[in-house]
Amino acid sequence: MICFFDSELERLLADDVPFGDLTTDQLGLAGAAGRMDFSARGAMVPALVEAAARLLELAGAKVALSARSGDALAAGAPILSAQGPAPALLRGWKVAQTLIEIWSGVASATRDIVEEARAASPDICVAGTRKNTPGTKKFAAAAVESGGAVMHRLGLSETILVFPEHLAFLPGASLEEIATKLRRQSPEKKLAIEVKSHDQALAAARAGFHLIQAEKFSPAEIARLAGALRGLHGRPLLAAAGGVKRDNARAYAEAGADILVTSAPYSAAPKDVAVSFVVDCQASTPKL
Amino acid sequence: MICFFDSELERLLADDVPFGDLTTDQLGLAGAAGRMDFSARGAMVPALVEAAARLLELAGAKVALSARSGDALAAGAPILSAQGPAPALLRGWKVAQTLIEIWSGVASATRDIVEEARAASPDICVAGTRKNTPGTKKFAAAAVESGGAVMHRLGLSETILVFPEHLAFLPGASLEEIATKLRRQSPEKKLAIEVKSHDQALAAARAGFHLIQAEKFSPAEIARLAGALRGLHGRPLLAAAGGVKRDNARAYAEAGADILVTSAPYSAAPKDVAVSFVVDCQASTPKL
Amino acid sequence: MICFFDSELERLLADDVPFGDLTTDQLGLAGAAGRMDFSARGAMVPALVEAAARLLELAGAKVALSARSGDALAAGAPILSAQGPAPALLRGWKVAQTLIEIWSGVASATRDIVEEARAASPDICVAGTRKNTPGTKKFAAAAVESGGAVMHRLGLSETILVFPEHLAFLPGASLEEIATKLRRQSPEKKLAIEVKSHDQALAAARAGFHLIQAEKFSPAEIARLAGALRGLHGRPLLAAAGGVKRDNARAYAEAGADILVTSAPYSAAPKDVAVSFVVDCQASTPKL
Amino acid sequence: MICFFDSELERLLADDVPFGDLTTDQLGLAGAAGRMDFSARGAMVPALVEAAARLLELAGAKVALSARSGDALAAGAPILSAQGPAPALLRGWKVAQTLIEIWSGVASATRDIVEEARAASPDICVAGTRKNTPGTKKFAAAAVESGGAVMHRLGLSETILVFPEHLAFLPGASLEEIATKLRRQSPEKKLAIEVKSHDQALAAARAGFHLIQAEKFSPAEIARLAGALRGLHGRPLLAAAGGVKRDNARAYAEAGADILVTSAPYSAAPKDVAVSFVVDCQASTPKL
Amino acid sequence: MICFFDSELERLLADDVPFGDLTTDQLGLAGAAGRMDFSARGAMVPALVEAAARLLELAGAKVALSARSGDALAAGAPILSAQGPAPALLRGWKVAQTLIEIWSGVASATRDIVEEARAASPDICVAGTRKNTPGTKKFAAAAVESGGAVMHRLGLSETILVFPEHLAFLPGASLEEIATKLRRQSPEKKLAIEVKSHDQALAAARAGFHLIQAEKFSPAEIARLAGALRGLHGRPLLAAAGGVKRDNARAYAEAGADILVTSAPYSAAPKDVAVSFVVDCQASTPKL
Amino acid sequence: MICFFDSELERLLADDVPFGDLTTDQLGLAGAAGRMDFSARGAMVPALVEAAARLLELAGAKVALSARSGDALAAGAPILSAQGPAPALLRGWKVAQTLIEIWSGVASATRDIVEEARAASPDICVAGTRKNTPGTKKFAAAAVESGGAVMHRLGLSETILVFPEHLAFLPGASLEEIATKLRRQSPEKKLAIEVKSHDQALAAARAGFHLIQAEKFSPAEIARLAGALRGLHGRPLLAAAGGVKRDNARAYAEAGADILVTSAPYSAAPKDVAVSFVVDCQASTPKL
Repeated sequence: MICFFDSELERLLADDVPFGDLTTDQLGLAGAAGRMDFSARGAMVPALVEAAARLLELAGAKVALSARSGDALAAGAPILSAQGPAPALLRGWKVAQTLIEIWSGVASATRDIVEEARAASPDICVAGTRKNTPGTKKFAAAAVESGGAVMHRLGLSETILVFPEHLAFLPGASLEEIATKLRRQSPEKKLAIEVKSHDQALAAARAGFHLIQAEKFSPAEIARLAGALRGLHGRPLLAAAGGVKRDNARAYAEAGADILVTSAPYSAAPKDVAVSFVVDCQASTPKL
Repeated sequence: MICFFDSELERLLADDVPFGDLTTDQLGLAGAAGRMDFSARGAMVPALVEAAARLLELAGAKVALSARSGDALAAGAPILSAQGPAPALLRGWKVAQTLIEIWSGVASATRDIVEEARAASPDICVAGTRKNTPGTKKFAAAAVESGGAVMHRLGLSETILVFPEHLAFLPGASLEEIATKLRRQSPEKKLAIEVKSHDQALAAARAGFHLIQAEKFSPAEIARLAGALRGLHGRPLLAAAGGVKRDNARAYAEAGADILVTSAPYSAAPKDVAVSFVVDCQASTPKL
Repeated sequence: MICFFDSELERLLADDVPFGDLTTDQLGLAGAAGRMDFSARGAMVPALVEAAARLLELAGAKVALSARSGDALAAGAPILSAQGPAPALLRGWKVAQTLIEIWSGVASATRDIVEEARAASPDICVAGTRKNTPGTKKFAAAAVESGGAVMHRLGLSETILVFPEHLAFLPGASLEEIATKLRRQSPEKKLAIEVKSHDQALAAARAGFHLIQAEKFSPAEIARLAGALRGLHGRPLLAAAGGVKRDNARAYAEAGADILVTSAPYSAAPKDVAVSFVVDCQASTPKL
Repeated sequence: MICFFDSELERLLADDVPFGDLTTDQLGLAGAAGRMDFSARGAMVPALVEAAARLLELAGAKVALSARSGDALAAGAPILSAQGPAPALLRGWKVAQTLIEIWSGVASATRDIVEEARAASPDICVAGTRKNTPGTKKFAAAAVESGGAVMHRLGLSETILVFPEHLAFLPGASLEEIATKLRRQSPEKKLAIEVKSHDQALAAARAGFHLIQAEKFSPAEIARLAGALRGLHGRPLLAAAGGVKRDNARAYAEAGADILVTSAPYSAAPKDVAVSFVVDCQASTPKL
Repeated sequence: MICFFDSELERLLADDVPFGDLTTDQLGLAGAAGRMDFSARGAMVPALVEAAARLLELAGAKVALSARSGDALAAGAPILSAQGPAPALLRGWKVAQTLIEIWSGVASATRDIVEEARAASPDICVAGTRKNTPGTKKFAAAAVESGGAVMHRLGLSETILVFPEHLAFLPGASLEEIATKLRRQSPEKKLAIEVKSHDQALAAARAGFHLIQAEKFSPAEIARLAGALRGLHGRPLLAAAGGVKRDNARAYAEAGADILVTSAPYSAAPKDVAVSFVVDCQASTPKL
Repeated sequence: MICFFDSELERLLADDVPFGDLTTDQLGLAGAAGRMDFSARGAMVPALVEAAARLLELAGAKVALSARSGDALAAGAPILSAQGPAPALLRGWKVAQTLIEIWSGVASATRDIVEEARAASPDICVAGTRKNTPGTKKFAAAAVESGGAVMHRLGLSETILVFPEHLAFLPGASLEEIATKLRRQSPEKKLAIEVKSHDQALAAARAGFHLIQAEKFSPAEIARLAGALRGLHGRPLLAAAGGVKRDNARAYAEAGADILVTSAPYSAAPKDVAVSFVVDCQASTPKL
């Protein structure tokens, strides 16, 4: 599981409460205390739950978890319960809630695609792209993981994926030469290449690439390509990418893709988290 | 305009390219050069254009801007053009593109709401909430600004907004007492309060709050409330919040809201940016 | 209350002890232990007490608090007591002490102004400017809060305050046009304007600004202006700014200012904190 | 000279303008341009001038320097002139001004002490303590340097200074044993010790400490001690510390102190910097 | 190529010169200027040359490069030449020199292993482990790249490498089950496994791992294993790890290893960089 | 002792595990638990032990220490034992191990030099230079301290050390003038100078420098210089620098050097730390 450091969570809190919580302070709620319960408004796969809980602790509350990131929650299911001084609860509330809501949207949308795809092809792999909001990659990766998928690439530093834009800068080179060079230099990596047509895909496969990433192929085109690749000795894996989403995931899986590469979850709507407060009447009641 | 520091943009680039660009390096493209053009795939209000341009400069390219954040671009309109070594272009490409795409989605959705609302009420104010992805507030604020709206609150430290959850910790206090205390303590701030019913709204208005934030009122309920407030001496401003989006913005505006408070743009789909490369044939051609 | 994160306090400690504590290490005090008591040398309003306590914990001590930031302490009153290994106490000592001393100077000077002003006008608001030492705003805000005042502005991003320098760039525009534009665009903010003469103040008031910040007016000039404003329908608030300090706070309050805006506390002398050590004779005594 | 990195200055600017400059943006001053001139309101020794200039450049202006940190400026002397878009000038203005004002107060107060002391003893050294506002040490050191003094200690990691509080943890040890141990272990450092009485001072001198820091001795006590030390073979340096300020610096110098250790400059009042704007009428005039 | 951001290089400089350069400042060298030439004392493969050059620019000098990271330099070959004020040269000197010296040691030792290995097996891949000094991974990766090798793993987040320690936590599982699970879940990654005996290696190969990392096998054991693997259908790659260094690289290559995994370069001695200064006699000569 | 903050250790962990631990996560080891024991493979002086222990705690384990940084460990001696969930152990393992290994190499090499030197001259001081890997100074200083030496200089900001390169910029100045100026300006510092010949050394000694740093003198040359200095009134300390290492440390000590300045430990080979895992069979066994 992807773990977050306190300093990463402090930054989120500081982003929203750089100084004090003006309203709470001016109302004089320092002495009050209570409980704040988070629950799933609808069915959802929650994400960043542990991080949100820790963030609430950093804000001054004690937190009990009722769910874990990646669980399949029914509507109404409790997520966490935070107890403590009113200012601690009010300070951490919205950041913790929003953190869960937004990334649970991503996790749930990921899970939807995974389930659609696996209904047709139980071993298929779903991979989230690096097209997340810049600066949020670690959160995005955690949500993708909670949804049951993996990250396609963490960035440019750890994978080999040749784009047509790379090839444009190598006008004279054949795919065989390119694959040979890469295989020699990076034997510990699978070699992936993005292709935009059936013929390019076959050429890349013959050149020895391990993974053919078919960009914006329809399911029918994927099916045709999968068929053609099946005949090859040491056939490469086939990844469908570009426009893959819940609606077509099953079709792509049925068509024979080994991997679905998708950015769709990143623009999923947040999943609502219901928040309710319970006042601790034993604690001192603020006086105006 | 919200400006970004180099160190903020370096962090985005480092997030995607923490070490080198493995594929480009292994292909040996160091000597190649070219141009990379960004343009709007469909009509859009671009955001973070200046920041993306600077990020490309930090990656090693020279950039010419054809559009400014906040412009109304037609489909196909050029956004920017980056020139330089192939590795510089390939290193900054996707981060710069994604930065513009995601936040242009937010800016465009904001602009849609602004235009819908102003069609009915030319002076209405649209305000973006703080329910952005945690850790991205400065980018969110820039996109909201590009869309023609303002930030409702930057966070908890600079505005007074009383929630029912605050009131729960003040069981004995009347709204008059609360407003009096806040007005005395924070005379430089407008006093806002979130209400969930017509009667609460009227009570808050009579208590002297400057801004009544009506949470999840229908346009009809807003209209009824606006009418009731109109009669008050020194009437407060009326903000509609909770579920405000493009589809209902005009109705809320017609109903008499002074301000529309919305989180809807934050889950808008990204706006596609088309990217095309032109190889500079004068530059040395890499050999495999 | 403004809370500080561990990482903020670690930075203060690292600033003073970037490596080890050379003297203590060379003397070989690792085995020794004791107690370090902080108390108020003279009467004072302490600030940053909780932060200093936490900083001492980060240095390795256990801390018991006897006072809270914002208390009114008599000379000799205990503030905190830290127990632990000698190196922990010696490492955190001066930073913790200086943190309290400097910001208690600010808090105490703020409190003096508040008390002077409230003696004449019980509901008056005192606001600290943003002219604190650059880079220390969060500490300054905490000290101002402990002194019983509020921050005038946290910076440029959250308030509307029109300076004559803004107007200079708008040669043709009338104050009415400006106020109308700002009110339409930022309805959630009070509109403030700095004026340098009685006539400018009246013009601004008539134009609809909510807050007239009278720069370097004498108390007599404030009184005259307050009188003139009193006649206005929906009169704006009147803030006295520029040279406001303890000596004249009461006069400004009597003159009818609603708000006193002051930078004076930031150059107050520190309040001395007495520090005394008690050696724990049970702990192993270092041998040279 | 102490140099500041862009990232250090960006942090100061971000502290004051975390998002946009709301007033300037809402007034629509993007097209306007002009010049902003800083000059010394009274006589002063400016500090942090180069850093302030660079900060203004980071805000978007072009800057010409008329003075250097450490100069002796007469009232009215120009300091710097910044040219550029109105938003750049308005964004950097107050932070740059305050940076110079506060630290010029420290530099000027340092210079006063240096001049008083050198009038009596031309070779005397003035040293600023580490009792600066926590978190501002690099700025403090730069101001002390501009004032013509040095830093007594940068912190705990690079100097040997034995306090009575250290000795308390070493009940059985003689000063000779301590000095011997320290000299053996840290031969590259001068050994300093804080003493609170004449007899302690003599004992420390006989024990071989290189520098006797006499805490809260009157000038007369310093004179007596200086006389007594003069007789010693290889006499240690004598530093007067605790309460040293402009008023008594000459007396301490006359008394025979070799070094004056002072915290007084850190609570000096800021030195006013006059700021005037000149509008560039060639630039486009904003329309409301 | 791995690029460094200014903020990364500023941190190195700040580490060595947190405040001013005391000696240079006290000597009053501000007006002096000159040139500082770096050259290779012996034959070497330089690394971090571009970063050191930029660091010197950040210190205030102008730099001309005579060599590139990764070049094969003869003894005496020029590396770079920095021109500017004496304080700029003296401030950046040792950090820039040490940066090149230490990482050129790593690059040169890497190159030695690469050349030894390729003499026997021209297509062999040399990979540097992640056992670099914690906190220096980006520098280590740059030096390894300059030496002509690749990084084995950047860390734990981007590669699959099963250790015996993982297997210990999976007592009942067969290697086939493990490989099947990993292949299904991470189809875009090659599956690597560390083995400590010939039999484990064969079992892992039969289970379908793509890469067998043979830990502390002698060249003879590698040869035996390579022979045994050769017979397998779809044979995995064979990596020799643990104790691989210059002396045995050729033997491991001859034995049939496809990849040499080595930590040896990280403890290579630095490569000396000769530094010579030329005083610019036109610049003002400092007076004491 | 040099202490490390959590945020410093988090950065090391994040460097190696920026996202999750892919292998461990994909194997599904979340439920497993166990113990991880670190011990010394050979005799060693361990360093950074407390920091590594804390790092393992930050990774999620509980740690018991069996050794302290600076101890003299025999081969096989236990260092620490970490208990907890398998993912916590596997996540922190290599970083913690490498941290100890690399810096224990430095500490042990330092200790070797100290012991060699003290065998000849019991009071001699060994000082580590600032030629550590850029960016690792705090770790280097901690290792040097564990080895029983001190840091020669922390950097350029706290010591006076005149290089020939400084003198080159002061063509007309005599060493007497330079020493006088420095002594006047920095009376709290010892004045050190690097010399490259016997005559320069004597001239510097006569000029009043406190410490003569003889660069690349042979032991015989040091002996001759020590003899010559012995005759001087108030003789300076003599430091041997440049090429000092274990093999010649005793010779330099016998020759009469007071201080040995060495960079040699920084390129010492790491000291192996043996790591063994014990599976906790009570914990749930992962199922594939």
